[in-house]
Amino acid sequence: MSTPESLRGVVRGLHHVAIVVPSIAEARASYEGLGMSAGEPEYVADQKVNVLVCMAGDQRIELVEPAADDSPVAGFLARRGGGLHHLAFCVDDVAQAIETLMKRGLRMIDEAPRPGAHGTTIAFVHPGATGGVLMELVEEPDGH
Amino acid sequence: MSTPESLRGVVRGLHHVAIVVPSIAEARASYEGLGMSAGEPEYVADQKVNVLVCMAGDQRIELVEPAADDSPVAGFLARRGGGLHHLAFCVDDVAQAIETLMKRGLRMIDEAPRPGAHGTTIAFVHPGATGGVLMELVEEPDGH
Repeated sequence: MSTPESLRGVVRGLHHVAIVVPSIAEARASYEGLGMSAGEPEYVADQKVNVLVCMAGDQRIELVEPAADDSPVAGFLARRGGGLHHLAFCVDDVAQAIETLMKRGLRMIDEAPRPGAHGTTIAFVHPGATGGVLMELVEEPDGH
Repeated sequence: MSTPESLRGVVRGLHHVAIVVPSIAEARASYEGLGMSAGEPEYVADQKVNVLVCMAGDQRIELVEPAADDSPVAGFLARRGGGLHHLAFCVDDVAQAIETLMKRGLRMIDEAPRPGAHGTTIAFVHPGATGGVLMELVEEPDGH
């Protein structure tokens, strides 16, 4: 990688915004009405959710619906209703990012990288470290 | 403008993500720790808030703290604690966007454009139209 050492392990862009909705089928008309383009929902087994990727220009917005009562987002939906769930940021190297953030005193939910959807490697930062915002770090399989 | 008629009045990118925090002074270390660059907070009189713009690569993230007890975000903070507040999307023409969205059945908070910060023109979409997400439409003074 050509990233200078001083910039490693930190976010370098917004990967996606995740929005929890009760029903992708009901929500997609609004998001398409706003002018976003969407494909077809995909089932993500690890989280027991269906995900619809909507593109607002170049920006990826993910609509997430629970696919089972014990899905991690089912509780959020029951407690808060649908809404903004988390921000995911691009990093070059999740392991390095975790090390850097912990050295800087930021609390992590995942203190080691774990597999995400589509071959990505991810880790979640604890919302207590960011003023109440759940944040995901995403390393793409090609390092971008 | 060179935008085709069929694409007018719709979002063409993410302008910013707004995050409400109890204290910008306390939050900025975490956001800088994540690798975002930040300038100095600015007071936005219309909303009675202070705003700190943080850049995650090219993406603008705005930290918003109430500057008065009757600030529109003070209630959010009291009710929910800090967290994700709204998404703002770029549009070429807010008036046209409002017309298009209302024709498509999306409920608006602002049925007419109003002035935003820094010479922008804005309108808010009702969260009931988007599955619980407050969305702002932003037209930059130069039309971008």
